[in-house]
Amino acid sequence: MTLGELAQRFNLTLSGDAQRSVSGLATLGGAGPDQVSFIASRKYLEQLADTAAAAVLIHPDFADQCPVDTLVTEDPYLAFARMTSLFDRSSRTAVGVHPAAVVSAEAEVADSVRIAANAVVEAGAVIGEGVVIGANAYVGAGSRIGANTCLNPGVIVYHDVWLGARCIVHSTAVLGSDGFGFAPGPEGWEKIHQLGGLRIGDDVEIGAGTTIDRGALEHTVIEDGVIIDNQVHIAHNCRIGKNTAIAGCTGMAGSTIIGANCTVAGAVALSGHIEICDGVHITGMSMVTRSITEPGVYSSGVPASPNREWRKNAVRFSQLDGMHKRLAAIEKGSAP
Amino acid sequence: MTLGELAQRFNLTLSGDAQRSVSGLATLGGAGPDQVSFIASRKYLEQLADTAAAAVLIHPDFADQCPVDTLVTEDPYLAFARMTSLFDRSSRTAVGVHPAAVVSAEAEVADSVRIAANAVVEAGAVIGEGVVIGANAYVGAGSRIGANTCLNPGVIVYHDVWLGARCIVHSTAVLGSDGFGFAPGPEGWEKIHQLGGLRIGDDVEIGAGTTIDRGALEHTVIEDGVIIDNQVHIAHNCRIGKNTAIAGCTGMAGSTIIGANCTVAGAVALSGHIEICDGVHITGMSMVTRSITEPGVYSSGVPASPNREWRKNAVRFSQLDGMHKRLAAIEKGSAP
Amino acid sequence: MTLGELAQRFNLTLSGDAQRSVSGLATLGGAGPDQVSFIASRKYLEQLADTAAAAVLIHPDFADQCPVDTLVTEDPYLAFARMTSLFDRSSRTAVGVHPAAVVSAEAEVADSVRIAANAVVEAGAVIGEGVVIGANAYVGAGSRIGANTCLNPGVIVYHDVWLGARCIVHSTAVLGSDGFGFAPGPEGWEKIHQLGGLRIGDDVEIGAGTTIDRGALEHTVIEDGVIIDNQVHIAHNCRIGKNTAIAGCTGMAGSTIIGANCTVAGAVALSGHIEICDGVHITGMSMVTRSITEPGVYSSGVPASPNREWRKNAVRFSQLDGMHKRLAAIEKGSAP
Repeated sequence: MTLGELAQRFNLTLSGDAQRSVSGLATLGGAGPDQVSFIASRKYLEQLADTAAAAVLIHPDFADQCPVDTLVTEDPYLAFARMTSLFDRSSRTAVGVHPAAVVSAEAEVADSVRIAANAVVEAGAVIGEGVVIGANAYVGAGSRIGANTCLNPGVIVYHDVWLGARCIVHSTAVLGSDGFGFAPGPEGWEKIHQLGGLRIGDDVEIGAGTTIDRGALEHTVIEDGVIIDNQVHIAHNCRIGKNTAIAGCTGMAGSTIIGANCTVAGAVALSGHIEICDGVHITGMSMVTRSITEPGVYSSGVPASPNREWRKNAVRFSQLDGMHKRLAAIEKGSAP
Repeated sequence: MTLGELAQRFNLTLSGDAQRSVSGLATLGGAGPDQVSFIASRKYLEQLADTAAAAVLIHPDFADQCPVDTLVTEDPYLAFARMTSLFDRSSRTAVGVHPAAVVSAEAEVADSVRIAANAVVEAGAVIGEGVVIGANAYVGAGSRIGANTCLNPGVIVYHDVWLGARCIVHSTAVLGSDGFGFAPGPEGWEKIHQLGGLRIGDDVEIGAGTTIDRGALEHTVIEDGVIIDNQVHIAHNCRIGKNTAIAGCTGMAGSTIIGANCTVAGAVALSGHIEICDGVHITGMSMVTRSITEPGVYSSGVPASPNREWRKNAVRFSQLDGMHKRLAAIEKGSAP
Repeated sequence: MTLGELAQRFNLTLSGDAQRSVSGLATLGGAGPDQVSFIASRKYLEQLADTAAAAVLIHPDFADQCPVDTLVTEDPYLAFARMTSLFDRSSRTAVGVHPAAVVSAEAEVADSVRIAANAVVEAGAVIGEGVVIGANAYVGAGSRIGANTCLNPGVIVYHDVWLGARCIVHSTAVLGSDGFGFAPGPEGWEKIHQLGGLRIGDDVEIGAGTTIDRGALEHTVIEDGVIIDNQVHIAHNCRIGKNTAIAGCTGMAGSTIIGANCTVAGAVALSGHIEICDGVHITGMSMVTRSITEPGVYSSGVPASPNREWRKNAVRFSQLDGMHKRLAAIEKGSAP
């Protein structure tokens, strides 16, 4: 790849040597003379001065401060994101069905699929054009995998789960497992068989170890463009709106609805049967127990402090209501 | 299935057309004229008036408010739970051992098992009557899977793990992995090989992505009727009492004991070496650091609020002990 | 094994019957007359008096209080840890490549490997001497597994992931999945392909269900001797220093650096782009949002209390800043 080719392919304005050949991408500090770097924010301007990159993706406002060739664009970070696809060296499964895969004769499988060794596809599954099913992955009966979607090795898709086009699912994610539904009976918990399915839109990414349960009666729904990080737990009957992002280790209880264009940071816990409107941003480790009806940023949790201080303050937390009453008594002139 | 057949099978009092045929279950709002619905709580009475269901599972107190046929029972939710098993369309693995499964000749396997493609069963394992071992699942040496237990695709059972009868284990759950045991040595951590096993009773359900470690010397124990949701972490030497329920993302450190008939909500963290008595209910995201000796409801955590307000309050948390002292000084008349 | 052999092998001073034969290890309370036990702390001295063990690993200071034979050492817990390896009965995969494994002809595989049924090894992978690759495990293209490392069944190693020697990785752990990197674009999130790898040192243990993402441009790094429990999430570009221990359910956001010899307890959440210095100990369920530059113990979170009390105190938390102002007003003599 030359700088000239990159400029043309990604619609960038090159100022520099169009014939210069580059082999990869790197940070400003880490880039060598055959790599392209990028500057996504003003706070990296200091590092810009010392970069050894072949060229830098840069906003027009900063272009004149760049000591090396520039690839100018209004959104350098977006251009960088798009450029990463050129340099991805991840494993490519061969076209076709590996002889060690087990694909039901009653599955409907497009010609251009790539199904790896020891993958299993059950009867009634529909596998679209260009789909990749990694080694040891599983697709249950009647599930549908949309065109160009990639299931990495070890992904498990239960029955009656539909994924749209161009999704990426990372290893050991489980899609369509039973929701946690039980009725108390005279002899213990009585299982509520989970009869709903799971419907996932187009362009969804799902992280490693994430689990999304099927619905109890209706479907659990993940809309188009949603991105979900690792080890997220989404319970039955949840619905996640378009382009919402959910970071690692977050858990949502059943029947909770999150709107579009939300960001939920890591390690957040959301109660069940609540509704978060569009455009809500929840910071890390928050505990969300009620519906949120106004866009904005919401938070809870208290940052760590030295253990000695924390011990004292944590004890006072348990006395807070008492402190409040004592304060009110003083204000009324009645204390002590 | 006709309403008459349902009434007879589940011991319900039908008021309506016994010949009417139904094909499934649905919510009051979602049910069409060939589906049965249910009303589990007074708060859904409004939706009852408009239901288009063929019939509704209903308590005798509300039966006269139902616009459609009724299937009357003292516990409609329990009847609904039982009825779900009729309409479960999940994949059924064929009876026998799939030719692509790898089952040791030294395993003891009942005739009625269903072992799917690419499952692996090691020497000395004992697989009971009617057991289902899903695709790509693994059963280690000397482990025992009780009658009619189902391991979904991708479940991993280490060696010396016993499961009772009628358990359901969801995909990528790991049973019997090593506990996190290390002794500090002069050159770093020295592994304590985990010599205990894992013993799981009858009628236990274990969610996707849940991990239960084997014991260090003695066994980790899950008693009969326990239900565990997704991504729960149970460390070595824990013991969970009969019919206790644990919701998603909860983690328990080592040697902690939970009694019978407890409910632990989602995202709870329990310290190690503590004991929770029978009949304790812990609300979501609580941090449990001490033993609990009285039944009841226990909680911690602070719900999320708008970020601006939270920031101010979180700072004050770090000053709580100081505030307490200032308050005491005022009360003594010695402030400021 | 006789007591004499144990004493010799582990460099212990035996006081008792060197010919006595033992078959295992047990706790002081649980040990029978053919088992060795240990006393790691003064607080178990009471149990020592009643032990039925064949012999006890014991510090010289307590040896005269032991009613049975003694194996004396300055560090009984460390001696116990080392002795556990003798009694480990876990499955041993046979040497060689199982006929149902799928190993690329372009992988470099040492003669002494043990590769189990249905494992998959891709082209360019390098599998060292004595490596164990469990059933249904996966090693991606170009990844390197160091000598005597063990991948348990169902472990997933993506491409370009290097593990050192003598590591143990538990089932369903995922190494080298994509980091959660996306740039906002006009039509939704634009994926940043994750071009970095993952580098793991020697003697690292990684728990079941743990996920460690590859780097975005540079590598994610886990140094020698690190021990990581189950269901830990380590995001892209993190770096964990030598001999640090991380307990279950802890999550770290991207680019966070943890120094050497730290302990991070369970269910901790660490923000991204922060740095924790060497020798830091973080207690369970803490929320770490800023860098820590001094060794020591850090904490946050409030322990659970009865729900009734908690409700009142949690409400007061949301009024904390107001309480602080009211207190200040009183101190100034201006209230109410």
